[in-house]
Amino acid sequence: MIFILCYRILYQMIPLADDAITRDEKALILAYDHGLEHGPVDFADVPASADPETVFDVATHDAVTAFAVQKGLAEAYYPSYEDDVTLLAKLNGTSNLWMGEPDSAVNWSVENAADLGADAIGFTLYGGANNEVEMAEEFRDAQEAARDHDMGVVMWSYPRGQGLKNDTSGSTIAYAARLGLELGADITKIKYPGSADAMKWACDVSGKTKVVMSGGSKTSDREFLETVETAMDAGASGLAVGRNVFQREDPTALLDALEQVIFQEKTTDEALAATSAETTSN
Amino acid sequence: MIFILCYRILYQMIPLADDAITRDEKALILAYDHGLEHGPVDFADVPASADPETVFDVATHDAVTAFAVQKGLAEAYYPSYEDDVTLLAKLNGTSNLWMGEPDSAVNWSVENAADLGADAIGFTLYGGANNEVEMAEEFRDAQEAARDHDMGVVMWSYPRGQGLKNDTSGSTIAYAARLGLELGADITKIKYPGSADAMKWACDVSGKTKVVMSGGSKTSDREFLETVETAMDAGASGLAVGRNVFQREDPTALLDALEQVIFQEKTTDEALAATSAETTSN
Amino acid sequence: MIFILCYRILYQMIPLADDAITRDEKALILAYDHGLEHGPVDFADVPASADPETVFDVATHDAVTAFAVQKGLAEAYYPSYEDDVTLLAKLNGTSNLWMGEPDSAVNWSVENAADLGADAIGFTLYGGANNEVEMAEEFRDAQEAARDHDMGVVMWSYPRGQGLKNDTSGSTIAYAARLGLELGADITKIKYPGSADAMKWACDVSGKTKVVMSGGSKTSDREFLETVETAMDAGASGLAVGRNVFQREDPTALLDALEQVIFQEKTTDEALAATSAETTSN
Amino acid sequence: MIFILCYRILYQMIPLADDAITRDEKALILAYDHGLEHGPVDFADVPASADPETVFDVATHDAVTAFAVQKGLAEAYYPSYEDDVTLLAKLNGTSNLWMGEPDSAVNWSVENAADLGADAIGFTLYGGANNEVEMAEEFRDAQEAARDHDMGVVMWSYPRGQGLKNDTSGSTIAYAARLGLELGADITKIKYPGSADAMKWACDVSGKTKVVMSGGSKTSDREFLETVETAMDAGASGLAVGRNVFQREDPTALLDALEQVIFQEKTTDEALAATSAETTSN
Amino acid sequence: MIFILCYRILYQMIPLADDAITRDEKALILAYDHGLEHGPVDFADVPASADPETVFDVATHDAVTAFAVQKGLAEAYYPSYEDDVTLLAKLNGTSNLWMGEPDSAVNWSVENAADLGADAIGFTLYGGANNEVEMAEEFRDAQEAARDHDMGVVMWSYPRGQGLKNDTSGSTIAYAARLGLELGADITKIKYPGSADAMKWACDVSGKTKVVMSGGSKTSDREFLETVETAMDAGASGLAVGRNVFQREDPTALLDALEQVIFQEKTTDEALAATSAETTSN
Repeated sequence: MIFILCYRILYQMIPLADDAITRDEKALILAYDHGLEHGPVDFADVPASADPETVFDVATHDAVTAFAVQKGLAEAYYPSYEDDVTLLAKLNGTSNLWMGEPDSAVNWSVENAADLGADAIGFTLYGGANNEVEMAEEFRDAQEAARDHDMGVVMWSYPRGQGLKNDTSGSTIAYAARLGLELGADITKIKYPGSADAMKWACDVSGKTKVVMSGGSKTSDREFLETVETAMDAGASGLAVGRNVFQREDPTALLDALEQVIFQEKTTDEALAATSAETTSN
Repeated sequence: MIFILCYRILYQMIPLADDAITRDEKALILAYDHGLEHGPVDFADVPASADPETVFDVATHDAVTAFAVQKGLAEAYYPSYEDDVTLLAKLNGTSNLWMGEPDSAVNWSVENAADLGADAIGFTLYGGANNEVEMAEEFRDAQEAARDHDMGVVMWSYPRGQGLKNDTSGSTIAYAARLGLELGADITKIKYPGSADAMKWACDVSGKTKVVMSGGSKTSDREFLETVETAMDAGASGLAVGRNVFQREDPTALLDALEQVIFQEKTTDEALAATSAETTSN
Repeated sequence: MIFILCYRILYQMIPLADDAITRDEKALILAYDHGLEHGPVDFADVPASADPETVFDVATHDAVTAFAVQKGLAEAYYPSYEDDVTLLAKLNGTSNLWMGEPDSAVNWSVENAADLGADAIGFTLYGGANNEVEMAEEFRDAQEAARDHDMGVVMWSYPRGQGLKNDTSGSTIAYAARLGLELGADITKIKYPGSADAMKWACDVSGKTKVVMSGGSKTSDREFLETVETAMDAGASGLAVGRNVFQREDPTALLDALEQVIFQEKTTDEALAATSAETTSN
Repeated sequence: MIFILCYRILYQMIPLADDAITRDEKALILAYDHGLEHGPVDFADVPASADPETVFDVATHDAVTAFAVQKGLAEAYYPSYEDDVTLLAKLNGTSNLWMGEPDSAVNWSVENAADLGADAIGFTLYGGANNEVEMAEEFRDAQEAARDHDMGVVMWSYPRGQGLKNDTSGSTIAYAARLGLELGADITKIKYPGSADAMKWACDVSGKTKVVMSGGSKTSDREFLETVETAMDAGASGLAVGRNVFQREDPTALLDALEQVIFQEKTTDEALAATSAETTSN
Repeated sequence: MIFILCYRILYQMIPLADDAITRDEKALILAYDHGLEHGPVDFADVPASADPETVFDVATHDAVTAFAVQKGLAEAYYPSYEDDVTLLAKLNGTSNLWMGEPDSAVNWSVENAADLGADAIGFTLYGGANNEVEMAEEFRDAQEAARDHDMGVVMWSYPRGQGLKNDTSGSTIAYAARLGLELGADITKIKYPGSADAMKWACDVSGKTKVVMSGGSKTSDREFLETVETAMDAGASGLAVGRNVFQREDPTALLDALEQVIFQEKTTDEALAATSAETTSN
């Protein structure tokens, strides 16, 4: 009883659970679980990106507030980077060799992630999938274990499955965002729903839970920055990006520009002017 | 052995398990899990209702004996309201993105709910659904854990599924109410079965378990109050309401009137006269 | 090791596990889980029987050696009756709203039942059902936990499912009885297989496990007593009865007569003469 | 660490795990789980065999090195026989009321079996059945728990299921035998594959794991002894027998003869001459 | 907390997890689980290979850095070989009697393997199989338990199932290799993808995780050595071989030659010249 009392007193004093993976309440999450989710084909254009050291090096960029990887990469590489990289343990994930119903294996326990030094967990939920109920219960276990370790919780909220015709419609993405709030995420990663208004809707229904935009497949610097700027203006707290960074020969320029847009509240034009990112659309 | 003896002596001395969420053995539960169960579309008419603070503020109304939310909302907002709101932890729930058999993910453990300060748990059981057996076993675990924490237990008893043609028939609703008694709920939340007689049947077969009427979709103040009055006369112990409160621009007037009907045993006419609730049907 | 030795010495000294729910090695179990298994419709003819207090009062009759209810009824009512009623915790059961394969949810843990003061557990096994394997494994857990708490074990052994054409044939009922012995029940509750010979077969293959006849749907006093007398003569150790008692306006007369037949080894005629039970068939 | 070291030192000093259920490294297991697996019909020819005491008495015969029963029989009868019978706890088994895919419920935990005084466990594996994977994992748990209690492990290795045309072919039975070795049984019980050569193949691939022949359905004394003699010559370490013993009016004569063949390495003719077993085939 | 700190300090100091099963960071794993996976038919050509002692003797060859067997063989034979053989506990596996979806029963717990003295675990993952998610989660448990025991982890990464047309295509094998890295294997065992380029791709995307080539079905000494040489040149760290060794009358010559190619970086011609392996293709 005394323990519970103490706990609750502490609870109200402790900093926000996602402090470790944000800066000024904003986040730029570099995600690098594509080797599991998509396979080595994602590294084909920039072969060096197959080497985790290459991408761990990118993650040391000041703009990156957290680096999301699966357990194997964290075990083998994070000990060499723990002073320079904030580890976000992406707990679940599945290869695309798999043809079954959308699902995601829980490949990593929270306890193990905490032992390895992770500051937060990442967890995919496929709302609307046949396995939604099971995934939500796995998320519950992970979320509550994360709280026991004072770790932040990021939900990859990706509605998917037979009942969903257009998984980036405004109402679906707003629902995805709300699921993060309802189920206990500190940050919800959603796909960009195609317009500022739809993005605003998603942010408006997220309450205290932060929303970050998913980077998606590779586009030009300008196009990408403009979408991020729009999302930030609509209320997003940042970005979770993978291919748009590591599929570039030199990711630094884009990260410099993203830092301007996300943390310095600069426009795309200002960011392009201030950095060496490409100024033209391809 | 001595422990068990002590426990049982204590057991007979402790107040009723639902004391914390009732007043004079009656209950007005404000439910706000629509962001999970229905999605942001439920907030469209009153956009402010998407903000949990708006509805937490409503829950501070004296008439509200308990506020039912999912874990995420409790984590993020309840610490600021714990002196003014009684927390009812709605443990399970599922998005309506999901097209599968009726089911409900257990999104919150009792232990976590107790740590956060919840006084009772809420749990949905879809009697007649293909997942009834599994849900009943999940309810068992939650109910027994709630007892270990001296928390009250509220069952959302909603028969649903392939074998049920009319899920608000008198016999189905009476069965739903009885399930609450048989399986160990302190309060069973049922849908209004359409008549005073059917409501009385449901209350008559509930023994010491209290019955509260589910608020359902939004109607006029008068219509709603009349149904509540009928239910109370039939033996109900109160109401669990969501949309009929938070989908109103100013929920206070209706809550004032509900307080009259539920706790002061006033008629609808008396309640309307004593408060600023709308006196005409729409 | 010493503990195990002590345990085994004790094991051979302790009284039979079902002593608490039998008298002179015979049993009259009053079962009242119909509100779960059949729904409120079973109380329609005698509305007072919907009130658990009514039936708990019946269970105080001297002839009743154990009262079988689900957890909710035990929690709410048993504390007021614990000096006068012997509690048999019916652990599993399912509503008939459910249209799926025969199955039974485990609604009550043995530990919770022991804490509430139960002297024995009751458990349904649907031999031959698609869920037989799962149910047998749930029975294992319950049976072994009951042993840890020195509680008796009663199996409701009801073969049921796709492979069974006539679930009261002699060989099916004998098999049902044998399952109780093989799997570790102290008492097996079986349906009456239609003849004295078939009942004798079932009793003959039950070894030290006692057999009690299931009461079935309501018949006249004489008819019912004659069947019980036949079963006792065939080797049964008693009766488990529900509707044939609580669906009567005054169950006392029949219980008086059953006491004569079961415990005093009287004939039906003697029992009818000695009590106020109805002497004619309807 | 020290504990592990000690354990491993001890491990190499302890006698073979199956010492308690063998004599001179040979085994005659009397199996009596037919009441569960086949039902009371197996007792029809010799009604006394339905009474466990009758068969427990048979199990006291010197030739019987272990008696295999389900938990219920062990609980009720073994305490009276523990000085004269070696208990082999048959952990899993299923009624033939069940029409589903070959499977076997785990009806008994190793811990409970150890508490009751069992010296070894018996476990059925249906290789090739749709449930093979699940059964193998249940076997793992039982096998490892048995090791923790220094109990021997006997596998009933019975390939069965959709992919198997002839489940007593030489290659299937050799595979069955090998499964016992690979998965950690001390003794594997296999069906007789129809010839001395096939039996030898099965024994040859079993390494240090002993092979015992399954008794099968009832035949004449001579026929049965000749098959056992053939199996022993082919490398078997004994026999597991049920119906061929307890379906005889006087099982002693056959057990006397089996003792000659199995433990004294006598021929069938010698065994028949030295005992009162029937000398002619029926 | 202090414990966690100590653990992490230690973590960075301990030698590589696979040190015990490699020599100079290279591995030659002798696998002998064919009795389970393929059945006794794999021993038909060299009957002595059915006897585990024969193959344990082979495993004492200096070239063999680890010997992979199932639990039963380890229990019965490893205690006699523990000074001369390094045990790799192959935890999962399934008979080919089974006709269901690709899956693999977990036949051995990590704790038991550690108690028996294993230095590493081996685990099959069928990426792309309907059971991929479940297998990945079983791998997680095994991998993390292995870390707790400082044991190395070898993944048998074999994409298989309905969605895979050619399970040795370059992209499939590269994906298989990457799964080992992503999910936390120290060594990934893959099939040879048919060309040096494809093998190089697989090695290039494996980061710090070592890749070993699977031996496959029996070929001539020269053919086999040439493939191994090609794999080593492409970046492989060694070989996992079964039938190509134990299906030979005298496996020593081939092991001598493999030692030259794998550990001495010799060509096939040099290896053949230096040993008594067969110099011609058959």
